Amino acid sequence: MFITFEGPDGSGKTTQVQKIVHTLMEEGYDVVTTREPGGTEISNQVREVIMNLRNKNMFPRTEILLFCSARAQLVEEVIRPALLTGKIVISDRYSDSTLAYQGFGHGFDQQTLKQLLNFATGSLWPDLTFLLDISAEKGLQRRISNKVEWNRMDDYQLAFHQRVRDGYKSLVEESPDRWEVIDADQAENLIQDEIKRRIHIRLDKFLREISIGEKK
Amino acid sequence: MFITFEGPDGSGKTTQVQKIVHTLMEEGYDVVTTREPGGTEISNQVREVIMNLRNKNMFPRTEILLFCSARAQLVEEVIRPALLTGKIVISDRYSDSTLAYQGFGHGFDQQTLKQLLNFATGSLWPDLTFLLDISAEKGLQRRISNKVEWNRMDDYQLAFHQRVRDGYKSLVEESPDRWEVIDADQAENLIQDEIKRRIHIRLDKFLREISIGEKK
Repeated sequence: MFITFEGPDGSGKTTQVQKIVHTLMEEGYDVVTTREPGGTEISNQVREVIMNLRNKNMFPRTEILLFCSARAQLVEEVIRPALLTGKIVISDRYSDSTLAYQGFGHGFDQQTLKQLLNFATGSLWPDLTFLLDISAEKGLQRRISNKVEWNRMDDYQLAFHQRVRDGYKSLVEESPDRWEVIDADQAENLIQDEIKRRIHIRLDKFLREISIGEKK
Repeated sequence: MFITFEGPDGSGKTTQVQKIVHTLMEEGYDVVTTREPGGTEISNQVREVIMNLRNKNMFPRTEILLFCSARAQLVEEVIRPALLTGKIVISDRYSDSTLAYQGFGHGFDQQTLKQLLNFATGSLWPDLTFLLDISAEKGLQRRISNKVEWNRMDDYQLAFHQRVRDGYKSLVEESPDRWEVIDADQAENLIQDEIKRRIHIRLDKFLREISIGEKK
């Protein structure tokens, strides 16, 4: 089962991913976790190019293609092999980030981006995606006060982050069955409880469907 | 006017490009020259990832997207601005390399690659492309004997280079008006004479058409 976490920067994704991975592993699940952009040696080299503060004059098309290249490598080297051996893969960001940031944020055509993402990933989409939803203002505030390293991606304006948030909501509307939306403006442990509850419902359903499929 | 040079490794492209650029500049033309992958600070960082010998397990999709990202940056930062101010841009490799190497070489669908290239370049294609044509065997032999630094790209087998050569020929057949095919298995100065002769015919035609366009 392939599970991804999406949401604006500062929504607490990374912490929540670490916690749920820890929980699932303690429960005996075989879990592989990845982060984007990165997650393989090659993808990390691409990540460095994307995040490098010196690269201020990077054009949006370049950025999109770099994200897609890092993702292509991650899918073939890590995600697909793990899924094929029945593992749970949990990724901190995936293709929906491109649709939200580069599509809704930068205004690139959704259909063109989807073609590009299908090429990069061999049309691999998640079974379940969590949106940690928080207002653009609160997301940015948190990120600054957390003193997480400031990078080139943060330089974009607040308006951009607002478009990203609205974009995520459009994506949820497009395929509601794939998404679970969590209000990220609450205490960390409450968010985690909610994720845990919903992930177990989905996992049970997923495993039941697989077992029915195998019996057929 | 946008002119590109294509051909298998070892066909002598780089030397020929340097010579014709030198000649055109001496004749008073305003020439910008680029090489692929690379040609901007960001594209050079991407080039390092592509060429890095350590990155042996790079998947073809990753490679294609990296080439496209380096090209996207080169087009927006260098090529398009130069063309807009009336300069001649001469590039050592461009989109046709992706169609030849990743398409015909790796077997990726030409139509999909063209969509990707149109995204990366904003549909910018050359006005004129030289194919320095040489057999795959001779191309590889030359490259080895020239003691040019061996890189990851050279590891592909001879059969691959054969497919690339045949691929270039298919591209020429597809749009013969854009291409000039030069036999690269002859003395350097003879090749250069041929390039010079043909480039001047094309340049005169191009400049005449522009001047007619301006008068209208």
